[in-house]
Formats: sequence, structure tokens, C-alpha cells
Amino acid sequence: MTTSYNRLDKDNAAVLLVDHQAGLLSLVRDIDPDRFKNNVLALADLAKYFELPTILTTSFETGPNGPLMPELKNLFPDAPYIARPGQINAWDNEDFVKAIKATGKKQLIIAGVVTEVCVAFPALSALAEGFEVFVVTDASGTFNELTRDSAWDRMSTAGAQLMTWFGLACELHRDWRNDVEGLATLFSNHIPDYRNLMTSYNTLTNAK
Amino acid sequence: MTTSYNRLDKDNAAVLLVDHQAGLLSLVRDIDPDRFKNNVLALADLAKYFELPTILTTSFETGPNGPLMPELKNLFPDAPYIARPGQINAWDNEDFVKAIKATGKKQLIIAGVVTEVCVAFPALSALAEGFEVFVVTDASGTFNELTRDSAWDRMSTAGAQLMTWFGLACELHRDWRNDVEGLATLFSNHIPDYRNLMTSYNTLTNAK
Amino acid sequence: MTTSYNRLDKDNAAVLLVDHQAGLLSLVRDIDPDRFKNNVLALADLAKYFELPTILTTSFETGPNGPLMPELKNLFPDAPYIARPGQINAWDNEDFVKAIKATGKKQLIIAGVVTEVCVAFPALSALAEGFEVFVVTDASGTFNELTRDSAWDRMSTAGAQLMTWFGLACELHRDWRNDVEGLATLFSNHIPDYRNLMTSYNTLTNAK
Amino acid sequence: MTTSYNRLDKDNAAVLLVDHQAGLLSLVRDIDPDRFKNNVLALADLAKYFELPTILTTSFETGPNGPLMPELKNLFPDAPYIARPGQINAWDNEDFVKAIKATGKKQLIIAGVVTEVCVAFPALSALAEGFEVFVVTDASGTFNELTRDSAWDRMSTAGAQLMTWFGLACELHRDWRNDVEGLATLFSNHIPDYRNLMTSYNTLTNAK
Amino acid sequence: MTTSYNRLDKDNAAVLLVDHQAGLLSLVRDIDPDRFKNNVLALADLAKYFELPTILTTSFETGPNGPLMPELKNLFPDAPYIARPGQINAWDNEDFVKAIKATGKKQLIIAGVVTEVCVAFPALSALAEGFEVFVVTDASGTFNELTRDSAWDRMSTAGAQLMTWFGLACELHRDWRNDVEGLATLFSNHIPDYRNLMTSYNTLTNAK
Amino acid sequence: MTTSYNRLDKDNAAVLLVDHQAGLLSLVRDIDPDRFKNNVLALADLAKYFELPTILTTSFETGPNGPLMPELKNLFPDAPYIARPGQINAWDNEDFVKAIKATGKKQLIIAGVVTEVCVAFPALSALAEGFEVFVVTDASGTFNELTRDSAWDRMSTAGAQLMTWFGLACELHRDWRNDVEGLATLFSNHIPDYRNLMTSYNTLTNAK
Amino acid sequence: MTTSYNRLDKDNAAVLLVDHQAGLLSLVRDIDPDRFKNNVLALADLAKYFELPTILTTSFETGPNGPLMPELKNLFPDAPYIARPGQINAWDNEDFVKAIKATGKKQLIIAGVVTEVCVAFPALSALAEGFEVFVVTDASGTFNELTRDSAWDRMSTAGAQLMTWFGLACELHRDWRNDVEGLATLFSNHIPDYRNLMTSYNTLTNAK
Amino acid sequence: MTTSYNRLDKDNAAVLLVDHQAGLLSLVRDIDPDRFKNNVLALADLAKYFELPTILTTSFETGPNGPLMPELKNLFPDAPYIARPGQINAWDNEDFVKAIKATGKKQLIIAGVVTEVCVAFPALSALAEGFEVFVVTDASGTFNELTRDSAWDRMSTAGAQLMTWFGLACELHRDWRNDVEGLATLFSNHIPDYRNLMTSYNTLTNAK
Repeated sequence: MTTSYNRLDKDNAAVLLVDHQAGLLSLVRDIDPDRFKNNVLALADLAKYFELPTILTTSFETGPNGPLMPELKNLFPDAPYIARPGQINAWDNEDFVKAIKATGKKQLIIAGVVTEVCVAFPALSALAEGFEVFVVTDASGTFNELTRDSAWDRMSTAGAQLMTWFGLACELHRDWRNDVEGLATLFSNHIPDYRNLMTSYNTLTNAK
Repeated sequence: MTTSYNRLDKDNAAVLLVDHQAGLLSLVRDIDPDRFKNNVLALADLAKYFELPTILTTSFETGPNGPLMPELKNLFPDAPYIARPGQINAWDNEDFVKAIKATGKKQLIIAGVVTEVCVAFPALSALAEGFEVFVVTDASGTFNELTRDSAWDRMSTAGAQLMTWFGLACELHRDWRNDVEGLATLFSNHIPDYRNLMTSYNTLTNAK
Repeated sequence: MTTSYNRLDKDNAAVLLVDHQAGLLSLVRDIDPDRFKNNVLALADLAKYFELPTILTTSFETGPNGPLMPELKNLFPDAPYIARPGQINAWDNEDFVKAIKATGKKQLIIAGVVTEVCVAFPALSALAEGFEVFVVTDASGTFNELTRDSAWDRMSTAGAQLMTWFGLACELHRDWRNDVEGLATLFSNHIPDYRNLMTSYNTLTNAK
Repeated sequence: MTTSYNRLDKDNAAVLLVDHQAGLLSLVRDIDPDRFKNNVLALADLAKYFELPTILTTSFETGPNGPLMPELKNLFPDAPYIARPGQINAWDNEDFVKAIKATGKKQLIIAGVVTEVCVAFPALSALAEGFEVFVVTDASGTFNELTRDSAWDRMSTAGAQLMTWFGLACELHRDWRNDVEGLATLFSNHIPDYRNLMTSYNTLTNAK
Repeated sequence: MTTSYNRLDKDNAAVLLVDHQAGLLSLVRDIDPDRFKNNVLALADLAKYFELPTILTTSFETGPNGPLMPELKNLFPDAPYIARPGQINAWDNEDFVKAIKATGKKQLIIAGVVTEVCVAFPALSALAEGFEVFVVTDASGTFNELTRDSAWDRMSTAGAQLMTWFGLACELHRDWRNDVEGLATLFSNHIPDYRNLMTSYNTLTNAK
Repeated sequence: MTTSYNRLDKDNAAVLLVDHQAGLLSLVRDIDPDRFKNNVLALADLAKYFELPTILTTSFETGPNGPLMPELKNLFPDAPYIARPGQINAWDNEDFVKAIKATGKKQLIIAGVVTEVCVAFPALSALAEGFEVFVVTDASGTFNELTRDSAWDRMSTAGAQLMTWFGLACELHRDWRNDVEGLATLFSNHIPDYRNLMTSYNTLTNAK
Repeated sequence: MTTSYNRLDKDNAAVLLVDHQAGLLSLVRDIDPDRFKNNVLALADLAKYFELPTILTTSFETGPNGPLMPELKNLFPDAPYIARPGQINAWDNEDFVKAIKATGKKQLIIAGVVTEVCVAFPALSALAEGFEVFVVTDASGTFNELTRDSAWDRMSTAGAQLMTWFGLACELHRDWRNDVEGLATLFSNHIPDYRNLMTSYNTLTNAK
Repeated sequence: MTTSYNRLDKDNAAVLLVDHQAGLLSLVRDIDPDRFKNNVLALADLAKYFELPTILTTSFETGPNGPLMPELKNLFPDAPYIARPGQINAWDNEDFVKAIKATGKKQLIIAGVVTEVCVAFPALSALAEGFEVFVVTDASGTFNELTRDSAWDRMSTAGAQLMTWFGLACELHRDWRNDVEGLATLFSNHIPDYRNLMTSYNTLTNAK
């Protein structure tokens, strides 16, 4: 029952943010909007913090799907940005795949809207080309839980690993001593419970 | 961990609609009836839109199970229609299997009521004969979530892929440019949130 | 413990549809969108069927709130339509109140988006002016259940009666014999379970 | 804050079973069908056990609404049975009200399908005529929880008391010593957990 | 809208623990058993801590209902203990009412199993005799949420106040300075989250 | 992706009912008690109907676990009945395994209380000895959904197939024409929605 | 049934933020932490935006309850800040009541942690002194939904009005034309769905 | 489909308790705190009862994560206790792995907070080194159910077995006769329903 455990490696991982567009976000109903927005921004901050190559893509952004969340554009002004003219599976867009391959990374961290399409299709394509795929389930959203469960089953069966942004951050960071403050700030900004712990802790230790 | 990704191909796929009968529909309690009706009609519209060969079948329709949903009959007046005299697994009916094989397709998209019987049995039979099977989980219904989860596990373990109608449409369509209006109409008719996006978009762009 | 029961009377009731706009609808998350759309259209059909004076109003429809659901415009082409320039409580708009008073009706049936504002504010205003108020809870939507429960408590405490569209239809109709086919059609178009009953029934009785 | 507590009195109470018809039962989705069937039969057994005058009524039973649950007909072969020709509110049917008044009882225990119509309408009418009304919430069913909550609010505000069959049985019985075995049998037949307690208890005490 | 606020007063309150028996506890399914056990013991500890007169009663404890939770017997060895021979409403037992009146208190805090019977019946009786009644909702349990909601509505309408053990403790204590350690111990023993806060706090302040 | 589909065969299947004891049943909280009791009895009726060899076993039935549900004893008076003196995994009891092997069947249908122990342990043992194992998920119960989900994952991963009693009945029966009335009676007795369909159907067809 | 509707008036309302402390926040489990944090900050921004006099208070902030959320301190640097030495009901603290009376306002908007204590106690006290009380239910949190529902019932019965921050903002603002941009910014910062609407709208209108 | 079933063996199993720290516990929101605390203590008692080598570890316990639950320290005063200076995956700490290997056990029972990190990382590492891994799902907690489901999928796919503490106890104990009283005490202390069964049973049998 031995299984090799290829951990996420911050020197070998890239982040794909697929179709987090203002219109499409109104379709997401399997996660509460306050939580979902927080998760997406946490993933983006994480990508920034670990300096992971990040690729943005949108589907038909001039139509009803709407523009990319402005926060993502602002966080990654220099990232490859592929506004796909029509391909639903981002992997069908040559520029998108080129941008991925240009990073030289073999571990792909994927999140998007909606899960069973914008995440699952490129995830399955990437697996078929030999990439390791890590789906960020809490930064990916879709119509309802039934749809999500179906999509998770399809991706997991094909070999994708289901993770959430907090687990990603921890697996990439490995050891708090690499940078206590940086990681703590990331958590404090995106986990209210953790922020509360820090507030109480800091107050008590400063009071000494 | 490489996995081949055989996408749904509109030239190689057929749709099986199994036992969506007026009586049996009253047994479906794992999905809200408004949503379920919409999903079934969306799948039917999708089959029509992509011109996928579609096969209808019913179980004992002159008894308490009741007649097929009239909307399905009306949408597919010329489709093979197999009113099974008694076989519970539609695959045990020779005419049904003949009709499938006559399509020459190797990818079977299956939905029905109830999931663990009318969908799972033919799905397992088709897998055993080498077909690729795509279960439309949101156009299939059953008694409750516990039953559904058991059925999904059995089908997934046997190799069926769990999908929902929206994912099917996207995987079949591949590229919006193949027909923007057609796909958008399908979505607008069956996804109220998407319809709202289009309403706002059209109003604003027409106002220009 | 005697309580007078002033029933809804189709000769004394008017319907107010408040802010069912394409943008605002994306805020509604206490009811599934398939069900909510169906409920709103059922209420509209009901108003039409009973020939109740109906008044449409919108809030800032040229901004992000978006245009009124086109289906409502189409159903009531001649209804008073008040596009409010800014008043959040529709009752603060003189034209709106004038239109209501012009109907001469004393029973107001109100639905809208979002419940705690677009419904509750005019409901409270109307109660304060002596109208009987019937809130259509299933054709009114808001951010989440916590918000809805708060709004219901506020309105109920103030004297509004909480009803759903089906109950309204039944209380207005009084007796099936007034028009069996009309009421049955309304139910068949908006209650999938009832449609199934009718399908089975008609099939069996026609087969005789 | 003193409130008079007029208890249910088995010599002053009648039971109204409104529209528990085979077709209408398929509309009930706020209670699981196994539990709902059990609750309705428990209420019927309770009425029988306490020899409460019981009145049966149906709405359009020759149409899609379907026939009364056969178990109810069998339990009360001699009860007044009013097959209403069209009145939706049973109280609008003279025979129904006459049958009630003929019992001479002032406390009405009402259950039916669907809650906001078949229960709420006669409940409100009875309250308006000075009866005490006890709604059996768990033997009354409707489309969904939102509808139920609205109906409960309307009835409670008007003075109806919301109870469940077990509470009714206990309030009517007053003291176990009036008949231990009879009450225990009622509970054992309709509360699996209570039956288990009795099974274990009887086994242990018989083993002595 | 002025309302008098008669606070719970530890010098004027008594606690009634009704039918927390080993058999009846298996009927409780509206609260998770780990949480429910904790709530009942918290209420008992609270009664002990504030030295409130406490009265225990059971229904048919030699039958399937089973013996009182041994923890309650042990905590209140000298409390009036009324094993009712048959009365379902504890208020129908003279000894029970005598014991209550003997305390001279006018505020009654009631909890029990099951809510709609063992709590609601004596609550309604007590209100009718002019007592103030505080129902401890989280130390009272019943078959399911529908039953609970009905029982709450009946009791609240009759004038009972719905509270939980934590609120009771706070309203009785008034000011932390009356005894910081005592109240904190009560909370630490029954609120894991509060215990965690204290553990972290104590560790940090002791480390200074 | 071809998978062999070895269907349940009524000539090659045996049923194991493990520890459905009155005491243990009070531990079951992942399924509502009305539904659970119905499911267990449905499975028993099914075993009887298809004349499947059935084996009963209990754990420590003279202690707090309590006696077997009397209904099961009554239904299978001649079935092997192994009251295990202490083995938790029924497969560790030689008499139990002998009784199974004496049936000569290779397909084992297992249900019990609690799922992760009384079902999972013998299921895993049977799989290890080469039997095909079908777990009846809706006639097996445990403490909560988290526990159930863990148990299902462990059994499914080991090769057990998760089914519910209705699916079992359909897979064993194969064709309605083998006995329409027998199967319909089984469904009518254990599926209220199906019973309603039959009631309406029979009334209408008898009326002809 | 006429009810006077005394609307919230920004010239007559004050905001009381009670015990939103880092430690106590870990007790809040009836609202998701991402959503709860957002709601509290939305209420604070609202108070700021409408320039409502705001009063902060804490309970034992040097103990395990922890310090006030720093964001609140920063937003209201000049607000009365009452660190209560022990009073659980903030209204028992003279400074707190003085600060309230100093505002001269008669409408009190109250939020806090935990709902049934820190909100309910001062709410009931304020009502008893003739204030109008508006509870901000979504910026108040507690242990679980059962506790919340009990607290709401107690407060509503006593005359408090249950509202959420969005409804408050709308009732205070009255008319969009008073300041479109200000209100829209408040909504955009705290309602992701509204922000999305604005993003799409602005993109489309700017593109003209 | 034969699968070997390597049961948990009390002579070959060790328990790893990872990061059950007072601060981190406030992050756990996928299990109710009363239940979670009970589960963790049940697992600890189980480890003690079966005399399984147990290893404790913490992450940054002098920071906001807080100290280990004192109950665990007290139960295992002589167990290896590794306060990790920074490694997030406990397996990256040499002392931790050394302590595990020193036990000579090949079956590792792991629980911790949070599931997807503190449990999943060492579980995957242990699997990669050939250990058998049993995750105690109900003594492991995390942010929400979505996160938990993702973590379970990742661990299960890698070969970990998902179990709960009750199943562990039963699989380790094998036969009640090995020690009836010991196991019963463990259950009585941590399963309220089981304690109730024992209370009723003992009362009845002692009464003989």
C-alpha cells in the first residue's frame, strides 16, 4: 500500500486562475459569496507570496460573462493574461498552454469558475499530458453541491488531487521558520479565526 | 499519473433517457422538483441542439409508473421509443440495445429515474460491453441523498463518469465560436442566473 | 380567541411586484434560482388569471440593479410601471401610491427583491395606512435565510400575513367549480408534481 | 403574564382529516414520506383510541387529487365523509360544518394536505367562529419548509395552537393510569424508538 | 413599545428538571447527544452554583422510560424528588406543585424531555397560575425540529420566555465581580471553546 | 474501461442481518427512525420474497445491546440464528461463517447496526475470502453522517458494492413479468409514494 | 390592523457595538466566520457613513474574552469606549447608559456577541426604558442556531425589531439620490454579488 | 475482487495525536465543539485502554496556536512529546519519526487539527514509507465540510483508511470477552446513548 508522496514544491508549481469573471461569479452557489471571495483572494495572495508563476485567463469577457475580478488583475499586472476568444477548455487555447509550458513547472494548481467546466476540463487535459494537478476546491465554485460532487469525482478519478488554499500554503511553506511573519500575515488576512488568535496573543504578549 | 482524456465528442455520442415517467417522477426526492424538471428538459434540449441520437424508453408505462413526460415525447417524435414490457434493466431489452448499436456511437450519455436502477443498471451493462458511459447526475433522480450517494459510488467505481448537463454541453460544444447564439439560448432557457446576465448585458449594449 | 378571518377577495385585491430586476436577482440566495423564477412567474400568471390590478416598479433600473425581468414586462404591458428615480421604499414614490389608490383595492399582495427592503418597507407603510397586506414569501427573495427570517418577523409582528403563491391562488379562487380548467392549468404550469398527476390522470381517463 | 390554559379535553374534541388523498400526498415535500405516513396513521389511531368524533373530507377525489388514503377510510367506516364537489376551504361546505357542529365539540384538531390551504383555511374559519383550534403540524404536509413556515405563522398569529400527534395524545390522556397498555401500544406502533425501549424492557423483565 | 424587563433573580427562581430519564433520552433527536448531555449537566451545575431550589421529577421510572440520569440524582441528593405514578403533566401531581410552592419562588426555570409534553404542559400550567416561566430550550429535547418548533410557538405565545443555559447563567450572575472564578469554572466545564480561551490565556499569563 | 458486471443473482445470494438489536438501534442517528425501521423491514421482506437464505446474528443480546428486533425473529423462524458470545466481527464466529458457507452462495448481502463495525468488519472479512459483497446502506445505521461516510469509503475501497434495498430488489427480480403482483406488493408496503401511485391507478382503472 | 411605522431616522439613531472581542468571537458558530466578520465591518462602515453616534463596549477585555476587534477601535477612535469592569448586561454600567443618553437619540441599533446575552440584555433594558430597539441580527453571533432562535423570540416578543445591516442602510438612506456613490461604495465593499454587478456595469458603460 | 483485510492489531499499532492545541481548536468548524472534544478524549482514552504507544506533537505552541489540550498532557505524562520548532508536516521532524520508529509498530492511527494539514501531511508521508495508516476522522477537525471532504479524498486515494474512534476500539478489541467491563466503561464515558442503555439495563437487572 506504499504510495509515493510528491509534495507541492514552490520551485515546481504554477497557478492557473480560470474565468473568475464578474458575471460568472453570480452562477456560484455551492459556496457562500463572502467565503468564496475570500478564498479566491487568499489563493491569489498565496501565489504572490510564494512567487509562483501565475496565469490568468477569461472566457468571452466582453459578453455577459463579464470582466475578470479587478482584484486579480491588480495583483498580477505582469502575469500572462489570456482572454480566450471562444475555447471553453482553456487548454484548447495555444497561448494558454504555451504560457504554462514557458514556466517550466510540472505541478499545476488550478482554480476557476465553474468547477466542472473551467477547472475540470483543463485539469483533465493537463493530467493527460503528464502534469501533476492540484485542484483548489475552495477557490473554485459552481451551481450547486450536486454539480460539485460530480465534478470532484471525475477529477479525482482521473488523478487530480483535491486541496484547499490553506493546505496548499502549508504544503508549499514546509516550515514556519522559513518566514513566520509572512505566513502569519497571509493567514491573518484570510482566516478571521486565526486573526482573532493573533489579536489576543499579541495583546497579551505586548502587555508583558 | 497520466490519464487519457477521451472527451465527449458530439459525433460519437448518443443520449439514453430512461423512465422519466409521470408516476416515477413522484418518487424523486433528492432534487427539488422545479430544478429537476428544468434539468431533464435542459438535457433534452441539449440532445436536440447537438443533434445527438436519442433513445427513449419506459418501464410499464400503462401501470402506476405512468406515461413518459409529454415534453420528451414531443421533442423527439422520431426517436426510437422502447416501451419495455417488463425488463427493469433497459439493457435486457433487445430492441433498446439494438437501437443503441444502430447509432454507431461509443459514448453513451445516460439519465433516468430512479438513479440506482434505471440509470445504474444500463450504465453497468454498457460499461461491461466496452462503451464509455457518462451519467447525467442532475437529470437523474431517486428517493433520497443516501440512495444517490450509494448509486454514484457503484457507478463511478465501475468506470462511469459523473457529469451534469451544463458540463456535457460545454464539453460537446468545445468552442463558443461554433455557435454563440445557439449555446447562449440553451443556457438562457435553463439557467435563470445566466438569463439575468444576458438580460442586463443586452439592455446595456442595446442602449449604446 | 375569536379572530375575524378577512379572506383575500379577488374583487378587492391588487398585486405589487417590486424590483424583480435582472441584477438584483443575483443577490437572491435564500431560494434556489429555478424555484424562485418559477414562483415569480406563477405569481404573475396568477395575477393575470384573476385579473387583479397589478403594479410594477423598479429601482434605478438603468444602473447595476438592471432591467425588470422581461417576462414581467411582457405579461403586463398595460400595467402601471413606475421606474423609481431613487426612492428605496416604493411607498415614498407618489406615483406608486397613487397607482395603488387608483385601484380602489384594500388588500395588497406584495412580492419583491430583496425581502427585507423592497417588500418590507412598502408592506410596513401600507399597514400604517390601513391596508391589509399579504406578503408572497416564495416570490420574494433575499441574501440568505437569516436575513429572511428577520424580515418575516418584522413584517408579521406589524400585521402582515405571510403567504405563498399557491395559497393565494386557492384563497382567491374559493371553489374549483368557478373554473376547473383555468386553475388546473395554472397549477400544471408551475407545479411539476401537479403536472405529473394530471398527466397520469389524463392518460388513464383518455384510455378508457 | 397569566394565561389561561384550556387543555385538550377528550370529551370536547373532534378531529378533522382534510384531503389526505393519494395524489395530493405526492406534493408533500416538507416531511419525509415514511415519517409523514406514520404521523397521519398515528393521528388516526389516536382519534380512534380516544374515541374522538372524526370527520373525513376530500377535494375533487375523482380527479388528479386522487382518492383518500384507503387506511383512513378503513379506520373510520362510519365517520362523516364529505367529498367536496369544489369548495377549497372545507368550511365553505355546509355538510362539513354541519357534521362538525353535530359533534357538539368546541376543540377542533385539524390536519391535512396541503398545510397552507387545506389546514389553514378551515382553521382560520373555525377560529373566526369561536372554536379552539389545534393544528397537528406533523400530520399536515406541504411543498417545502418555506411554505410551511409561512402557513404556521399565519395560523399561530390568528390563535391556532401548533401541536404534534404525540403531544395531543399526552394532553388528551392526562394520566398513564387511565390505561397504560392502550397508550403504550399507540406509542409502540408509531415511535420506533419507543418500541425499542419496550422490547428491551419486556425482555429483561420477562427474563426475571 | 415599552416593555417591563423582569430579570431572572437568583433569589426568586427555582429549577424544575422534568423526566430526564435514560429511556426517554433515546427519543431526543433534535439535538446531538453529546451536546444535549452537556447542556443538561450545565443546567444542573448552574442550579447548584446559584443554589437555586431544584425539583426533580420522573414519569413511570420503573417502566421503559427508565431511571433518571444518575448524574442528576447525584448532584441533588436532597432535592425534592417526585416519581410520578402516572400524571403526564407534572403539574397534575400535587406533590410536585407543593414542592414548587414550598420554595416561595415566582420564577420557574423548566427543562425536560420531551419538550412539547414534559416541558410545555407544566410551563402552560405554571403560566396559568401566575408564575413567570423560563424554558431552557437547549436542555430540553424532543423527536425532531418540527416538533420542537411547534412546541416553542405554543409556549412562547402563552407567555413563556425561551432561554438557553448560558443566558440563564449570565442573567442570574449579573456581574462577573460577584465571583469570577465560579462562573469561569462553570463555563470552562461546559463550553469547550471557552475552555480553550482560558487555557491559552492562562498559559500566556503564567509564562510572564 | 471495460468492467464486468456480475449482477446479483437470486440463486447465488444470501442475506446477513447483523445486530439489528433493540438497544443498538437507539445509537442510529444517520437515518430517521421511521425511515430506518421501514428500510430494515423492507430488506427482510425482500429476502423472504426472493427466498434468499438469511442468517441472523446478534452481539451480546442479553446485555444492554438488547434483543433482536422481534419482527426479524418472526419473519425468519427457521433461519440460522447466531447469538455471538463476544466476537465483535461476526466473521470471527465459526458458526456464523459455517452457516454462510452452508448456503453455497457467493454473493453476500449485508446490513447491520452499526455500519462501521457490524457491517464493515464482516464485509471486509468476506471480501478477503473471495465473496462478492453488497452492502445495504439504507438498512445499516450508525452514529452520524461523518461516521457513515468514513465507513462507506473503507468498504468501497476494499471492493464492496454500496446498494439500497430498492436497487437490490430490482436487480434480483430482473423482469416485472416474473411476478408483477409480488414485486408491486413489496414496493407498496415499503414506499409510501409508490403506494399512492397504485392507489390512484387502481381507483381509476377499477372505475372504468 | 393599522400599525404605525416609525422608520429608522439617521438623525435619531445611535449604534451600540457590544463585546465584539477577539476571544468571544471564537464562540460564534451560528454564522460562518467570513460572513460574520464582513457583517460586523459593514455595520461599522454604515455607522460611519451615516455619522451615527456609536458606542463601543467590552466585557473583561483583559481576560480570556480578549481585546476588541482592532478594526472597530480604528474606525471609531473618538467614540465612547466603555470597558466594563464586570457588568454582563452593558445597561448595568452607568457610563454606558450615560453615553447613550448623551447622544439624545431614541432609536438604538444594537449588535454584539453573544446574541442572547450581550445583545438581548441591553435590548430588553432599553425597551423597558422606552427606547426603540433595532437588533442587527447578522452582526450578532452566538453558539448555535437553537440559541439564536431562542434569543430572537425573546427579543421580538419584548418589542425589539429584527433587522440586518443591509436593511438598516436602506431604511436610513431613504433615497439613492441622497448620495448614490456613497451607498454604492458601502454595498460594493461588503456584498460580493453587488460588487460583481457594479464591475460588469462599469466595464460595459465605460466601454461605450 | 479479493482484498486482504489487515486488521488493526493492538500489538502492532501506535497513535499519533497531532496539534490538538487550544488555539487551533477554535479553527475547527466541521464538527460541533461538544462532540469534537468528546471524540478526541475518547480516542485518548482508547489509546490508554489498549496501551497503545502514543506520541504527542505540537506546532509552535508558544505562539497563537496555543498549548496542547491539558487533558492530553495529563493522560500521557510519559509519552514522547515533540514540540516542533517549525515543521508543519510532523513527519519532517526527525524526533517525531524516530519516536514512531522506536515503537516498532507498523500501523499508525492518526488524528489532529487541522485535517488537511496536520493529519494529511504525516499520513501521506507515512504511507510513502510503507506504514499502514488509519485516519481517525472524528477526532480530526478543520475549517468546514468542503475542506474536510477534499482532505479525505486525498488521503483515501493515497491508501489511508478512514475510521472513527468507535470502529477503532471495536477492531482493536476483537471480542467482548477479552474485557467486558473495560470496553463498556469506555463506551459509557463517551457515548451518551450507550450510557443510557447501560443505566436502564443495570437498573432493571439490579432490581431483580
